[in-house]
Amino acid sequence: MKIVLIGAGNVGYHLGKKLHEVGEDIIQVFSRKKNKASRLAKLVGATPTNQLNRIDTAADLYILAVHDDAIQSAAESIAEVLNGNQLAVHTSGATPLTIFEKTGLNRYGIFYPLQTFSVSTAPIFSEIPLCIDANLEKDIHLLMELGAKISDDVRYIDDEQRAMIHVAAVFVNNFTNHFFSIADNLLSHKNISLDILKPLIRETVNKINSNPPGEMQTGPAIRGDKKTMKRHLTLLKKHPDYHQIYKLVSESIQNK
Amino acid sequence: MKIVLIGAGNVGYHLGKKLHEVGEDIIQVFSRKKNKASRLAKLVGATPTNQLNRIDTAADLYILAVHDDAIQSAAESIAEVLNGNQLAVHTSGATPLTIFEKTGLNRYGIFYPLQTFSVSTAPIFSEIPLCIDANLEKDIHLLMELGAKISDDVRYIDDEQRAMIHVAAVFVNNFTNHFFSIADNLLSHKNISLDILKPLIRETVNKINSNPPGEMQTGPAIRGDKKTMKRHLTLLKKHPDYHQIYKLVSESIQNK
Repeated sequence: MKIVLIGAGNVGYHLGKKLHEVGEDIIQVFSRKKNKASRLAKLVGATPTNQLNRIDTAADLYILAVHDDAIQSAAESIAEVLNGNQLAVHTSGATPLTIFEKTGLNRYGIFYPLQTFSVSTAPIFSEIPLCIDANLEKDIHLLMELGAKISDDVRYIDDEQRAMIHVAAVFVNNFTNHFFSIADNLLSHKNISLDILKPLIRETVNKINSNPPGEMQTGPAIRGDKKTMKRHLTLLKKHPDYHQIYKLVSESIQNK
Repeated sequence: MKIVLIGAGNVGYHLGKKLHEVGEDIIQVFSRKKNKASRLAKLVGATPTNQLNRIDTAADLYILAVHDDAIQSAAESIAEVLNGNQLAVHTSGATPLTIFEKTGLNRYGIFYPLQTFSVSTAPIFSEIPLCIDANLEKDIHLLMELGAKISDDVRYIDDEQRAMIHVAAVFVNNFTNHFFSIADNLLSHKNISLDILKPLIRETVNKINSNPPGEMQTGPAIRGDKKTMKRHLTLLKKHPDYHQIYKLVSESIQNK
């Protein structure tokens, strides 16, 4: 399949490299930043461009791996130069399929890899769930087939499901990372590195492989251990937001 | 070293097994529940008992692996039968060393393995940080030596440090697990299994091995993406506690 990649950030970079690896033909890479486009284009044997109106019209698939708030305008820009027969997809978990409706594109879809990407780490694509949707039945099949080349977990996921997945992902990724950061900050007051908690963090995650997390809850809140909770709240007094979070999350655990 | 193990719950069970494995001499196991005492005693070649006043007075070390609120009374009970020369330790992260002060014991300390234990999973002890303290200098050394037989990470940790570690552990273990549970619950409304988020959860944890979590924060809150946050809050309307947690944690991320 001939593919044009629009966006060379973390998602575009890793997705582009992987699609090239499995033999797909990336013919062009767009990025507003010339050096980013060039770097990725070189890696995948494509032509770089930093002008959307110079987009190659000979591709079968246009992957919009751009920020959420740039998806619509990028789709509109390529719709102007395309002939209406090509398929365009975005890679965002937070953006509904309906964003494409007024862009002038006739065939559109979603190709959302459910993972957090960073420049430095090569993702294990085979394990990453790929959430697929499209306005045409045939394109759902086409994207499922493409997805199956890079991942062992390709699923049809509709807008409502994907929206819920995305908010759940905020809890397990963004919020969990913030709690790691809170722990790091608390420990630093006593000159202790976060390293001391890493085995516990790993085991917290291992545990959910054997039982649902709701059945594995431990700690002072679920035990109703008011003495310990009071001591903890005293320790958090210097951080009003940590203090409030501790109270609220403890109550939520007890509400269950 | 001759050891009496008081408590045969998750911590007592795994700690007892490990100490036996490395050649320590567990001579007796106490549990209020006769069958628990017997089961563990058999595994480690010890005598079981379910009466604290029948505790063997010939040991060098008494490990109190009981619930936090049972530590003091258990210490008082054994102090009555011991001659005052034996060392007793508790295994709790939430309980200060000072709890032993009025128990009648002369030598006391803490032997706190910083991990969450469950019956079903054998912990990798070598990776578990062991937090050591004692009222006598010589006993700190003694416990450090004992600890080094089962863990590669044995540290002297005082009461203030341990209290802070414990509250930080609540954030990274109890609260994080609750967020996994929230995600599980949200996804179940759309007939999706938590499995879809597990690669993301694993990567969230992997990331903190390369950079401090405070530098790796991603998501709508840190980006100031109000549109996405508003959509998420709408999705959480049916769960007032999730809704409040989402707002508060997002604010805390932005405060940083």
